[in-house]
Amino acid sequence: MALIDISEAAKFLSEHDNYIIISHRRPDGDCLGCAAALAAGLRRMGKTAYVFRNVETTAKYLPYVERYFAPDGFTADNIITVDTASESLFPIGAEGYTDSVALCIDHHPSNTGYCNLSCIDGTCAACGEIVYEILMLLNGEIDSEIASLLYIALSTDTGCFAFANTTANTLRIASLLVYAGAPLPELNKKLFRTKPKSRFLIESMIMSGIEFYRGGTVAVVSISRDMMNAAGATEDVMDDIPAIPGSIEGVIVGITLRELESGPTKVSVRTMEAVNANELCAQFDGGGHAMAAGCTIERPLAEAKAMLLKALDDKYPDGTVLAL
Amino acid sequence: MALIDISEAAKFLSEHDNYIIISHRRPDGDCLGCAAALAAGLRRMGKTAYVFRNVETTAKYLPYVERYFAPDGFTADNIITVDTASESLFPIGAEGYTDSVALCIDHHPSNTGYCNLSCIDGTCAACGEIVYEILMLLNGEIDSEIASLLYIALSTDTGCFAFANTTANTLRIASLLVYAGAPLPELNKKLFRTKPKSRFLIESMIMSGIEFYRGGTVAVVSISRDMMNAAGATEDVMDDIPAIPGSIEGVIVGITLRELESGPTKVSVRTMEAVNANELCAQFDGGGHAMAAGCTIERPLAEAKAMLLKALDDKYPDGTVLAL
Repeated sequence: MALIDISEAAKFLSEHDNYIIISHRRPDGDCLGCAAALAAGLRRMGKTAYVFRNVETTAKYLPYVERYFAPDGFTADNIITVDTASESLFPIGAEGYTDSVALCIDHHPSNTGYCNLSCIDGTCAACGEIVYEILMLLNGEIDSEIASLLYIALSTDTGCFAFANTTANTLRIASLLVYAGAPLPELNKKLFRTKPKSRFLIESMIMSGIEFYRGGTVAVVSISRDMMNAAGATEDVMDDIPAIPGSIEGVIVGITLRELESGPTKVSVRTMEAVNANELCAQFDGGGHAMAAGCTIERPLAEAKAMLLKALDDKYPDGTVLAL
Repeated sequence: MALIDISEAAKFLSEHDNYIIISHRRPDGDCLGCAAALAAGLRRMGKTAYVFRNVETTAKYLPYVERYFAPDGFTADNIITVDTASESLFPIGAEGYTDSVALCIDHHPSNTGYCNLSCIDGTCAACGEIVYEILMLLNGEIDSEIASLLYIALSTDTGCFAFANTTANTLRIASLLVYAGAPLPELNKKLFRTKPKSRFLIESMIMSGIEFYRGGTVAVVSISRDMMNAAGATEDVMDDIPAIPGSIEGVIVGITLRELESGPTKVSVRTMEAVNANELCAQFDGGGHAMAAGCTIERPLAEAKAMLLKALDDKYPDGTVLAL
């Protein structure tokens, strides 16, 4: 695997043609925005470029990217991936392409290096920051269409610039995108200030059902299949739900439990520095980071909750970091 | 009243000394951040500068600004206001200063011109954008302390860059503040990703009690004193509540009704373009903007709700813009 910088990536793109750009499985705004922006930018250079028709594209993003989807029967000479850290993340129908990717553009430090030419910058909050720089090298400017697509990439990967991954560079590029014509008010309204009714309903149920333990330092959310069904909530409206319990002042450990269709319970743990989420989840064969980890417990919701709370009590007895 | 630009404002500040900087009544992050940043910047020039001790400063902002508050008995030679559009907004205890303000720095186009020297830029989302430019003229750079205070100003006035008032210039300056050392992850966590338990509880009650009318195009939130008391919610946790009903997909008219302590009902109406909120509220002697307006109805909650819904039905009969 050869790591290349943005000017080498731009050089490759300018010297070739007939591209298909692949987003990842369960695509988000960053990979879809990058793929469409890159296709648009390459077309401006007179190239043929399409976005792979990712069948998991949700209604939220479809209106922005659909027009770039490759027509049936299109055969590319060069396959590009964006925002895709490993072969296992290739989208449905693109599994066969894993060995023939010409160029990978990504911001995940965990990128497995599956591609020969890899342009990776792990300091970027969004892959869109890298695609922005490449397109500026290629075209010297971006139009409002490309600016909008890259704004979708940057803003969605940073929770509208609220997440901790947001950097000065993210904001700098976001500013340049708005100067270039990205309609921030309209995009923010659609992407961040409007939620589907099913999301509103499930959030409402979650909030009224939240349980506090140990003097309010531990907050637990339990989400049953019945709740999901009653709210009409599907997987694609459940983004960032595990952040809810931890968003309450005084909460040190936020636990989100979800009943999976098959019966077991999916657990997400978010903590403040005083408590190690990774160590807690490791006891149930899970893992992650010190302040955000997960596991799956092969027990119903209520039992999984009791097991988690007991593990927490054992590891952090009363009066250590959590209140009585 | 003389309108002056940022270089004239900087010139005034560099030529005088002994400042007190006044924030507005019910102070928000923008005015408090501006006041403290300006005091810090003037001190860097060797000036004496304090922030007026605004007794309504909430716990959310107190830790950032308290150290700049004027000691008892301090007598200023020059009074500055920031983010204060009119004399009626002078904070408790500063009412007597309305005629003796030397310089007003503001971003409200509605500024009444109460001050002789007024540096006003109505295109700025936050007053902090103007203070940033003035401090750069004065000191050529800003330190991480000033950057943090101005980041608080910009981010709080734009809902962490999600509101429609956010411009390319807002994002540009935010980027420069983060480059200068504003700790974005820490500040965002405190200001936007953590809510007091009372806010969480009142939001939960509001969400589960929301009512939909006319095919889900009209959403109504009713907040009684009892709900406020049960949640332990005070005025300072009620920011941006009227945005809740309008955040649901399909909602064209979001109405928020609040029972005031004295009995009447405070009404906030947020609409999409198809419905004029200002015209609706004008029927109850209120007003505002086309898509965000308010009024106070001297009736209990339930009656006020019925009156509002009737006014809406009369003005927009079934099948016009709102569903059956």
